[in-house]
Amino acid sequence: MLKQLYTLGSLIETDRGLSFSLKNRIKGAHFNQILHLSINDQKVESHKILVALNSQQPIDLNTLGQNQGVEFPLGAVLNVFVDGISVPDSNTLSIDITISTNPFGDIDLSLKDKVSIPGAALGDLPRSTENDFHPDIVQARQNYVSEITGVKPTKLFNVDVELESLRGNIEHFCGIAQIPVGLAGPIKVNGEHAKGEYLIPLATTEGTLVASYNRGMKLLNKSGGVKATVVDDAMQRAPVFVFDDARQARDFGYWVADNIDEIRRQAEATDPFLKLRNIENYKSNKFAFMRFNFTTGDAAGQNMVGRATYAACGWILENHTNIRNFFLESNMATDKKSSFINILNTRGKRVTAEITIKRDDLVEVMRVEPKQIAQHQRVASIGSFLAGANNTGLHSANGITAMFIATGQDVANVSESSAGILYTEITDDGDLYLSLTLPSLIIATCGGGTGLGTQKECLEILDCFGPGNALKFAEIVASVVLAGEISLASAISSLDWVTSHEELGRN
Amino acid sequence: MLKQLYTLGSLIETDRGLSFSLKNRIKGAHFNQILHLSINDQKVESHKILVALNSQQPIDLNTLGQNQGVEFPLGAVLNVFVDGISVPDSNTLSIDITISTNPFGDIDLSLKDKVSIPGAALGDLPRSTENDFHPDIVQARQNYVSEITGVKPTKLFNVDVELESLRGNIEHFCGIAQIPVGLAGPIKVNGEHAKGEYLIPLATTEGTLVASYNRGMKLLNKSGGVKATVVDDAMQRAPVFVFDDARQARDFGYWVADNIDEIRRQAEATDPFLKLRNIENYKSNKFAFMRFNFTTGDAAGQNMVGRATYAACGWILENHTNIRNFFLESNMATDKKSSFINILNTRGKRVTAEITIKRDDLVEVMRVEPKQIAQHQRVASIGSFLAGANNTGLHSANGITAMFIATGQDVANVSESSAGILYTEITDDGDLYLSLTLPSLIIATCGGGTGLGTQKECLEILDCFGPGNALKFAEIVASVVLAGEISLASAISSLDWVTSHEELGRN
Amino acid sequence: MLKQLYTLGSLIETDRGLSFSLKNRIKGAHFNQILHLSINDQKVESHKILVALNSQQPIDLNTLGQNQGVEFPLGAVLNVFVDGISVPDSNTLSIDITISTNPFGDIDLSLKDKVSIPGAALGDLPRSTENDFHPDIVQARQNYVSEITGVKPTKLFNVDVELESLRGNIEHFCGIAQIPVGLAGPIKVNGEHAKGEYLIPLATTEGTLVASYNRGMKLLNKSGGVKATVVDDAMQRAPVFVFDDARQARDFGYWVADNIDEIRRQAEATDPFLKLRNIENYKSNKFAFMRFNFTTGDAAGQNMVGRATYAACGWILENHTNIRNFFLESNMATDKKSSFINILNTRGKRVTAEITIKRDDLVEVMRVEPKQIAQHQRVASIGSFLAGANNTGLHSANGITAMFIATGQDVANVSESSAGILYTEITDDGDLYLSLTLPSLIIATCGGGTGLGTQKECLEILDCFGPGNALKFAEIVASVVLAGEISLASAISSLDWVTSHEELGRN
Amino acid sequence: MLKQLYTLGSLIETDRGLSFSLKNRIKGAHFNQILHLSINDQKVESHKILVALNSQQPIDLNTLGQNQGVEFPLGAVLNVFVDGISVPDSNTLSIDITISTNPFGDIDLSLKDKVSIPGAALGDLPRSTENDFHPDIVQARQNYVSEITGVKPTKLFNVDVELESLRGNIEHFCGIAQIPVGLAGPIKVNGEHAKGEYLIPLATTEGTLVASYNRGMKLLNKSGGVKATVVDDAMQRAPVFVFDDARQARDFGYWVADNIDEIRRQAEATDPFLKLRNIENYKSNKFAFMRFNFTTGDAAGQNMVGRATYAACGWILENHTNIRNFFLESNMATDKKSSFINILNTRGKRVTAEITIKRDDLVEVMRVEPKQIAQHQRVASIGSFLAGANNTGLHSANGITAMFIATGQDVANVSESSAGILYTEITDDGDLYLSLTLPSLIIATCGGGTGLGTQKECLEILDCFGPGNALKFAEIVASVVLAGEISLASAISSLDWVTSHEELGRN
Repeated sequence: MLKQLYTLGSLIETDRGLSFSLKNRIKGAHFNQILHLSINDQKVESHKILVALNSQQPIDLNTLGQNQGVEFPLGAVLNVFVDGISVPDSNTLSIDITISTNPFGDIDLSLKDKVSIPGAALGDLPRSTENDFHPDIVQARQNYVSEITGVKPTKLFNVDVELESLRGNIEHFCGIAQIPVGLAGPIKVNGEHAKGEYLIPLATTEGTLVASYNRGMKLLNKSGGVKATVVDDAMQRAPVFVFDDARQARDFGYWVADNIDEIRRQAEATDPFLKLRNIENYKSNKFAFMRFNFTTGDAAGQNMVGRATYAACGWILENHTNIRNFFLESNMATDKKSSFINILNTRGKRVTAEITIKRDDLVEVMRVEPKQIAQHQRVASIGSFLAGANNTGLHSANGITAMFIATGQDVANVSESSAGILYTEITDDGDLYLSLTLPSLIIATCGGGTGLGTQKECLEILDCFGPGNALKFAEIVASVVLAGEISLASAISSLDWVTSHEELGRN
Repeated sequence: MLKQLYTLGSLIETDRGLSFSLKNRIKGAHFNQILHLSINDQKVESHKILVALNSQQPIDLNTLGQNQGVEFPLGAVLNVFVDGISVPDSNTLSIDITISTNPFGDIDLSLKDKVSIPGAALGDLPRSTENDFHPDIVQARQNYVSEITGVKPTKLFNVDVELESLRGNIEHFCGIAQIPVGLAGPIKVNGEHAKGEYLIPLATTEGTLVASYNRGMKLLNKSGGVKATVVDDAMQRAPVFVFDDARQARDFGYWVADNIDEIRRQAEATDPFLKLRNIENYKSNKFAFMRFNFTTGDAAGQNMVGRATYAACGWILENHTNIRNFFLESNMATDKKSSFINILNTRGKRVTAEITIKRDDLVEVMRVEPKQIAQHQRVASIGSFLAGANNTGLHSANGITAMFIATGQDVANVSESSAGILYTEITDDGDLYLSLTLPSLIIATCGGGTGLGTQKECLEILDCFGPGNALKFAEIVASVVLAGEISLASAISSLDWVTSHEELGRN
Repeated sequence: MLKQLYTLGSLIETDRGLSFSLKNRIKGAHFNQILHLSINDQKVESHKILVALNSQQPIDLNTLGQNQGVEFPLGAVLNVFVDGISVPDSNTLSIDITISTNPFGDIDLSLKDKVSIPGAALGDLPRSTENDFHPDIVQARQNYVSEITGVKPTKLFNVDVELESLRGNIEHFCGIAQIPVGLAGPIKVNGEHAKGEYLIPLATTEGTLVASYNRGMKLLNKSGGVKATVVDDAMQRAPVFVFDDARQARDFGYWVADNIDEIRRQAEATDPFLKLRNIENYKSNKFAFMRFNFTTGDAAGQNMVGRATYAACGWILENHTNIRNFFLESNMATDKKSSFINILNTRGKRVTAEITIKRDDLVEVMRVEPKQIAQHQRVASIGSFLAGANNTGLHSANGITAMFIATGQDVANVSESSAGILYTEITDDGDLYLSLTLPSLIIATCGGGTGLGTQKECLEILDCFGPGNALKFAEIVASVVLAGEISLASAISSLDWVTSHEELGRN
Repeated sequence: MLKQLYTLGSLIETDRGLSFSLKNRIKGAHFNQILHLSINDQKVESHKILVALNSQQPIDLNTLGQNQGVEFPLGAVLNVFVDGISVPDSNTLSIDITISTNPFGDIDLSLKDKVSIPGAALGDLPRSTENDFHPDIVQARQNYVSEITGVKPTKLFNVDVELESLRGNIEHFCGIAQIPVGLAGPIKVNGEHAKGEYLIPLATTEGTLVASYNRGMKLLNKSGGVKATVVDDAMQRAPVFVFDDARQARDFGYWVADNIDEIRRQAEATDPFLKLRNIENYKSNKFAFMRFNFTTGDAAGQNMVGRATYAACGWILENHTNIRNFFLESNMATDKKSSFINILNTRGKRVTAEITIKRDDLVEVMRVEPKQIAQHQRVASIGSFLAGANNTGLHSANGITAMFIATGQDVANVSESSAGILYTEITDDGDLYLSLTLPSLIIATCGGGTGLGTQKECLEILDCFGPGNALKFAEIVASVVLAGEISLASAISSLDWVTSHEELGRN
């Protein structure tokens, strides 16, 4: 296993001679020395070798030896330079190296690679390794688009943003996509965090969407507003450990339970806002699937939990002896995928929006009786079952997507976030109780794209920008989705659906 | 049933007296006469009544009688005006009306409603019934946002688009969300429709996404490019018909099969680009679920198929005698939801992208061996099974979402479109065969948001704007997704994943 | 809620006058007095009323009052006799009663029922309330069968068992079904509990089944036998508690966690072999689904966990104030149903059987190469995914069912027990690693049908009868199932499958 | 591919010299001649070779040549005898053979195998190749059981059946498992095929099962009996064809559609009772999954459809050029597994049982109100959804299993057959409409185990033995299952469930 924790990088020809890098992928390592290096089976004498940690100045091996090695933190790169190597015509060299580390001892690594020359284009796309957000390189990319496609976009390339603000949100930036935003509401939310009326910005290009949600909000307001509650909160990374047999995998589960305090310490050390709630342990065949559940404050947290789980796994790999293989993700997270496990066990926020709609309000606004809605829901629940759908409601994806685009969420999470559980009941008074649970709503009010220009403004319109607002935002999203559900359910139940599309959605 | 096919609209006080509307929801109807009208149990004399079809001039009932009624097409509205009615303090009136139609005979309808005055705000949100895209009303809404939220968005409200172009894509428009677009590729696609290299615009705020896809494309290009194939194409609406018992529901299925030619004629008459492929017939309890499968040319087609199915169902309801209830959608479509039925039976385009990646290319670009990828995929397929995921691949939602936002697709369809089936195999030569099927990719190259400013430009960059390009665009999307799969699979298999997030995704 | 915890039973005319019963469904209750009783709205004077707890002698109400009531344990029945009531022609009476209890106070109950006369046939089927296993009543039922169907079964009615031994396993007994048993094996099992070779009795009427499993065992023995491991063990009952809203349902979850010790005490008090492991808490809408996980020793334990959960819920209902409704089962157990939750979280035993089959052995016995098996498994896993199957293996139900029938298991549990996760890998030596996890194998070596004649004998053949053998038996079952998997996988991969059916299965 | 269609069997030493067999796995083949045979690289002269088709007399190769070969039907075995070969100490020989066939031309095959001596035990289990149902060999096996296990079963070995009758239903027969049978009913069924009252034999060892079903039947009879309807009927085999890419797999689908008539002819030629309804075509990656749907008359038909599909695939393999690999089963059938595809598309019979239960009957018999049942069903449908269950009802597996064991069905099919869709509705009169669809009920009234002693008698009690009764039997099974559903639903809703187990199920 240890061998996998160090990787040799590509061979590059530099001013200081042939260079390659050595990356550390494990916590707590100390790099002592290069014990042996041969290129094309020829041993290289140590005085020809310089090493540099990350972007520091290179030093020679002897100095290193006197200094008793260097700290070699997780993710650090040791650049090795070898002088006086002639590259053959094939342009290919093989390297064998033995390094001495602490506490992992001596490790042999090898690499066969073509030698490349830095600065040579990796592809045709203009990029700057110095500052890829400089106006010149953005302009270069825009020109490149026009050159190779013959298209001269004017709106896409009409960039009126501070380019530096985009760093960390996009690579190879070339322009701005413009998505129209419509307003719905205000909608009255009776949450534990969201209390009051909220105006809802919806970014979409689908006609009738805003109007339909707005109609639903009007009805829900009439009946007193939506009661919204966040009932659970978790973000996952799910590594898998491979063993020789099922017995070892099972016993590993016990070992993890016994060492949960140290594992938690390792994970939580990576971020002050992160808490490791628990580790679900799923066993199959010779595999131990470990689903780490974190809370991540007001960030969505996918990257935070990746780092934290990786750190915890580093400690596990160091301290448990018979692990045969390991992957940081096993498809049990299940990031960017809809799944039963997330409907069952929560990913992101689990939030319920509910209301009792007065029968008279429903008839007045929607021209439909509670029992028509209830009958449709009964039939649709058979339809959902037959279809194997991830949602017994109707179209939560519509409202979620429009709010996600407007507010800088990771829109790809619509895949998980659109799951839903709709429940209807006719009360003894003949009114309609309606309740929707979103079991895996992934949202953030800080981090990711939430701080960008229009995204931040839309969050501000919702009074949800920045730390401390994630639960409030979740309550508002669920309430909006409920408005869309009753609107479409009424349209279907009253056959009003197609004709409203006729009138509003002319495209 | 027939009663449900006509609806009375709200009571409004107008210059011509009290008004309400009567909407026709069925094809092939002729409106003859109002035989009886009473308000609060008081019969109204016929000379006090005027009627107007849609926005035509009102005529009196006698004239109507002489003219032997009016054509009353599906969706048409008959406005009825009654003179000299005094509204009580409760502001509530009850109406009973008997109308004579052809061929459905006499129908009794009733309504109890509050009388409203037009122009009075339905809510606080400024709207114009004349032209809701006029700069003044947009400005009014922007002011309204600032007034009630205290937020003064400058970027969101920086609207530099032709407002009229947005009609049909948004309601209550107030501003523009700006999403940064990065470039990946070019990627080489060997499709049946997409042949050549394509530069890929990706709209996202998730750091590392563009870089990761770009890395994948570099690898796939090295191995000769992606073979992409659209293998199926269908768009659905799934009405349900309710019967007295399972026997009638079953026999209805036979009846539909016997009448498929006429049903097809009715459906296809609604749009020249629409073909009804077949009707899947699913039976449960006393319900006949009918899943209409259409091809919709280069539009996504959800609205087209709604209209067409509605028209077909109108004919069915007229011609089959013992239907007890009917809903145009049963949750078996399954629009905006992930489902087994769509993975199995296709929704939108079913498209496969595949490639044999040379072992040396994989090692050079990704620092990972084919057998590591294969081993991860084997383990991940156990993980996917345990999790009940809709995808055996890794993160198709990422690439799909970024392309959908850029190109004006209905982004909410990420819920369905993100399903995927990944297959890997090591060839006898030790290379990696990799294949991904997207079973329910919903895309369009015309209609919806595809014609808007930046959206159209991004489709043009892909040489995919307008009719005739849907299959080509589907091939490109699948190829891009495959690039993302091999990139992330390599990162996970080589443990490179967390550290790359560390470096690129600083938020 | 409390009202639901007491039920009035049917009205019966007896020698002591009109009688009805009052059943207690809650723990910790004390019955004090009948405060009021009226029949058909006529108050009944207290001296006309006698009461009797269970089958004790009746006493009059005044005596009861002096004695300060009676202990009224969970499930106890208080029989009430009322003298001097005349039954009207309609044969129907309505009863209103107020009882005084401790600690639940005064409770009003009412009942409207027809008066029945005991001894009158409930149906035509001959039954004896005294001893329904007496040879005479069995004979009477056999005669009844012949009379009403005209069939005179000789084999079915050839009963050579001690009738009393069947009590608790069957009602309305009439005969014995004969299922042929074939032998397979011996199979070598390297378990933690099963160590050695076991001869396998398989009860089936499906030709080729025994031969196919036997062929698989021969191969597995050649490669050293099967390594089998029980990795988890749990039996569930999943009550649901209904609240006014999601917030209360969520907070109830915290309350349950806070009170887990007392809840465990209540549950475990019902059976010495029962341990409450944990309670899974799933939240949706206004419902709190609580999945109680027990270990049940060597019994399958469905009834044990029902009783224990009921007792625990009784305590919960008494001690938590705002529960609106309660059902002991919510379909989340999921007893007698296949489900994702049981594949994920275990029901019964979770057991893995695994082996590395030498390539030469596989070719010699099965005429198939490891890579053919591996290729089929890869393709079949796509098939399983598309089909939404509960099993990535081939036919675990066959071996499980045949062993279940032979050994007196609850065969209906095949529905859950047949789920499976098959994993294959070709080792560096070219051999075939094969591993099967049965995630929800429900078995027992005591209780249920395990002690009956042939059932006990078959368990004895397996050296698995009685307490202390459940884990061993689980290991053997999984090993047998693995033999069947490799046998059928080989047949499919070598195309040998249909022809072997041709030869052996002539029906 | 062709090479896979012929297999060489094991090497055996016989009186006529060394022997091995050659099996034909494809239709329409003619065997002409052995062109070449070498053993351990030594060519064998043709006069040393004898061949015998199946169990016919051997003839020499020259005779064969003069006779212009032999017909070589699918599944036929050509035994080859080679004189004068000395077996080396390693006991291993390698064989290379070239055969000439028509129309497939010359085919090279090879085999390396140990030489075995017939009669030597393949295992320890006593078997007779002559007649494995002779009393002596059965006795030998019984003795063997006692010898190696020390157990002397008296009931299991008390065999009072005609041994020959078991041929085709079991191998290695040693005894009879005895399962007690109880009676429930009669139940009134208003089917299209089952009309009248049926007494139900239930084979089970689970206490309360018979009583619970009986209670349900009593209620259903009171409300007029169960309306039962078979709404669909299909049995599947699902081969998969592997291609070079998705494009070829897609085009193969068109080819199959174009050649459906000939494919149907090939399939239906294998059995007169078999009809090929249609072939479902599912595409993923480079695979064409073909799900053949047959009707199989009154047999369950799994073997029939296997043979027929195999024959059809033989023709396909001969006539389509670019198939790379083929498996007769892809896990899409999905035999012996629960799956969405079978719930959606039917396997075996799809049958619905439905009834409107009068409110007063429900209260009288079950002490529960319709709205309590409806409320439980609403909550349980959320539970089923969260759990990912294959059944929205409660315990269909119980009744199905007990009837399957009694009547000689393939009990392993409980895995599929136990899926169910329960629907409840309260009518305008306050009564309870209840409907259950079993989407994949696999039953037979002839073939398999249905003709054995007690099994046949139980079918006769139901008036369902033999051809022409499958639909009737399906209607009865569904009606029985419905009785069990209302009985358990009532018990859960009235909290009566645990206490009834207390009273009846003492094990």
